[in-house]
Amino acid sequence: MLSHNGPGGWARRHFLAALAAGPAGAAAAQPLAAHLPEVMARPGGADLPYGLPAPQESYVERTLSTTAGFPVWRTPLQHQRGIITPSGLHFAVHHNGVPDIDPARHVLRLHGLVNKPLRFDLEGLMRYPMVSRVHFLECAGNSAANALSPTALDQTLGDIAGEVSCSEWTGVPLAYLLNEAGLKDGAQWVVAEGADGGSHSRSLPLKALLQDGMVALFQNGERLRPSQGYPMRLFMPGWEGNVNVKWLHRLEVTDAPAYTKDESGLYTQVLADGRIERFAFHMEVKSVITHPSGQQRLPEPHGFYEIAGLAWSGRGRIVRVDVSVDGGRSWAAAQLHGPVLDRAFTRFTLPWQWSGRRADLMSRATDEHGRTQPLRSEWKRRYALHSFNHYNAVQAWRVQPDGRVENVYA
Amino acid sequence: MLSHNGPGGWARRHFLAALAAGPAGAAAAQPLAAHLPEVMARPGGADLPYGLPAPQESYVERTLSTTAGFPVWRTPLQHQRGIITPSGLHFAVHHNGVPDIDPARHVLRLHGLVNKPLRFDLEGLMRYPMVSRVHFLECAGNSAANALSPTALDQTLGDIAGEVSCSEWTGVPLAYLLNEAGLKDGAQWVVAEGADGGSHSRSLPLKALLQDGMVALFQNGERLRPSQGYPMRLFMPGWEGNVNVKWLHRLEVTDAPAYTKDESGLYTQVLADGRIERFAFHMEVKSVITHPSGQQRLPEPHGFYEIAGLAWSGRGRIVRVDVSVDGGRSWAAAQLHGPVLDRAFTRFTLPWQWSGRRADLMSRATDEHGRTQPLRSEWKRRYALHSFNHYNAVQAWRVQPDGRVENVYA
Repeated sequence: MLSHNGPGGWARRHFLAALAAGPAGAAAAQPLAAHLPEVMARPGGADLPYGLPAPQESYVERTLSTTAGFPVWRTPLQHQRGIITPSGLHFAVHHNGVPDIDPARHVLRLHGLVNKPLRFDLEGLMRYPMVSRVHFLECAGNSAANALSPTALDQTLGDIAGEVSCSEWTGVPLAYLLNEAGLKDGAQWVVAEGADGGSHSRSLPLKALLQDGMVALFQNGERLRPSQGYPMRLFMPGWEGNVNVKWLHRLEVTDAPAYTKDESGLYTQVLADGRIERFAFHMEVKSVITHPSGQQRLPEPHGFYEIAGLAWSGRGRIVRVDVSVDGGRSWAAAQLHGPVLDRAFTRFTLPWQWSGRRADLMSRATDEHGRTQPLRSEWKRRYALHSFNHYNAVQAWRVQPDGRVENVYA
Repeated sequence: MLSHNGPGGWARRHFLAALAAGPAGAAAAQPLAAHLPEVMARPGGADLPYGLPAPQESYVERTLSTTAGFPVWRTPLQHQRGIITPSGLHFAVHHNGVPDIDPARHVLRLHGLVNKPLRFDLEGLMRYPMVSRVHFLECAGNSAANALSPTALDQTLGDIAGEVSCSEWTGVPLAYLLNEAGLKDGAQWVVAEGADGGSHSRSLPLKALLQDGMVALFQNGERLRPSQGYPMRLFMPGWEGNVNVKWLHRLEVTDAPAYTKDESGLYTQVLADGRIERFAFHMEVKSVITHPSGQQRLPEPHGFYEIAGLAWSGRGRIVRVDVSVDGGRSWAAAQLHGPVLDRAFTRFTLPWQWSGRRADLMSRATDEHGRTQPLRSEWKRRYALHSFNHYNAVQAWRVQPDGRVENVYA
């Protein structure tokens, strides 16, 4: 059922012949002037000091959901092509709104089990050596509805799984700051606190922070935006979103976790046998087909389509994505597009000749540690019925004979 | 004079001791509440469907120059950290303004020496297989003032050399479209024309287009912005900006260049012996130190600084960047930060212990083909006095004893 032909193969030639013969096909030779669009008859308009998308693209925006009790802004992944999410479309979950922080007065304190407590203002921090890395960021609760809802909701990809985005993050490695403060015996954890009205705070293992942690100051080349923690946030590649504390103003080195409200309640996970999975930081290997995806419609009931999607893993690089167009009975290896980066979105594609019949599309990613996505039924067996964090099961889309695409549990 | 110590070395310890002792140093233990910023006492504000930078960062914008006779919007590279330029800050040169194109009516025609002329509307083009690549884009005339002005102008980096930016571009390889149309004998060139009021057009060698050309539809994950050619532009990695025709509406396959107004005048280059360098498409290897750079001021007259910058080459990967802090008498290899991509910005850094005395900072990049940047005097010897395109000489910044940084010819 899968077409393994590339653009030069049968599927493509078939598609191209249809294209040439159809309304989009070749026009008979006409004087060029007859083709000149009217817009070329007048001078163009002005540009802006800070550019914006075309007005015609204003439908591409984050969607707001408040069903969780707090605002959740989701990335419209069904419109994204490429691995970089525009900063204006990066997902955000706010437990206490977006604080309006004066960067000139903002201070980051580093204290607790250290030899020399330190304070950093922004000017001071900007002088430290910085690293830049492209990484995804995903909310622990991304795809919660697929985990919880007994029947698959008919939604767009963004509304289902848009609490994940990918950016280039630049900032100061935490190791520099922690080593400068000097760690005392017994130092094992760090409690990070945000300067928001609810003091959002999480406990993180010191060892991992020393290895990978960053105080992020820049996103996609410019300073963090308010929605992403301006003027600074904690960044831990591959770890669930809410530990990447926004509006970071305090790091306390401790000998044990603080069991803050934010890590003792919402962001824990109950297993099927009743035990609680606490401090499960890593986001697991996952993928979604972005084209075609929920509520899109294939424009013609036969022909060539490129199946395209994004894959990521909180534990390392993606090494393989398999795609099925028959609900998981057979699979074909998708092409991975470079650069394939550690804990970053990886774009994959597969050419597909659609027969016009109902087709269930699925993608299943595997990372460099051999971890692969479970089916939904497998994921549900592992966790309690009401659990939803870290949902990474295979996403299935049903293409109906009329071309409409729907979320299904397959 | 250069410090080769990393963050753990002498320069850093010296700097850190100064930091701890100074006003940014450690505070005596105080009750935590005394440190709580006022902003934490109230709930935060709302977020936006399409996010924007913090109002406090509004000074980070493109700067407009019209001295060339047409608007030139430059990227404020002195504020960029990382290799991705935010799309809102991507440079733009408009010869005929920004046309307001209705994407539903826009058509790309492919005709000339082909077996089957083709027309593509946006919906049709969006169905083709796409590739994504991170590439810089640079105007042929970037850094023209440094080439032309007899004395170095005291300007910011953005105003001097901000006609270069780097994005992730996604689109349809031109080879798919050209092969579909079928090339006739004698096909050697392609004339690309934009749907702007001046019909901006350039002739490009067919062979190179087949290998590397793309009809770009997306930039940094979202649709091209009007300033960058919405709804589609030609993209040729590493080639001078103006051949990447914006608002692309026509590709004509020919047996010879068309010698359009845009390639017979402004975008040619006169050599020192009077010969004309036509169709010099590749942008050459180049680098700039972004921190510290023109009109910045080092905040204290001694101490540790990270020299940071960006390097790129239109011919391939950057393999080495050397940095001098003594006006070119001695050089040290900077650290390159990954990912180091083909024809993309590459970030480099070098730790530096400033003595407080006058220092001339320079960077010199080398690409994988062994090409390296000339000194300004070497570049000037090659071209006629009034030539300015493809200027890629070493950029020098003078740090004055008071910390102020100035553009110099060194």
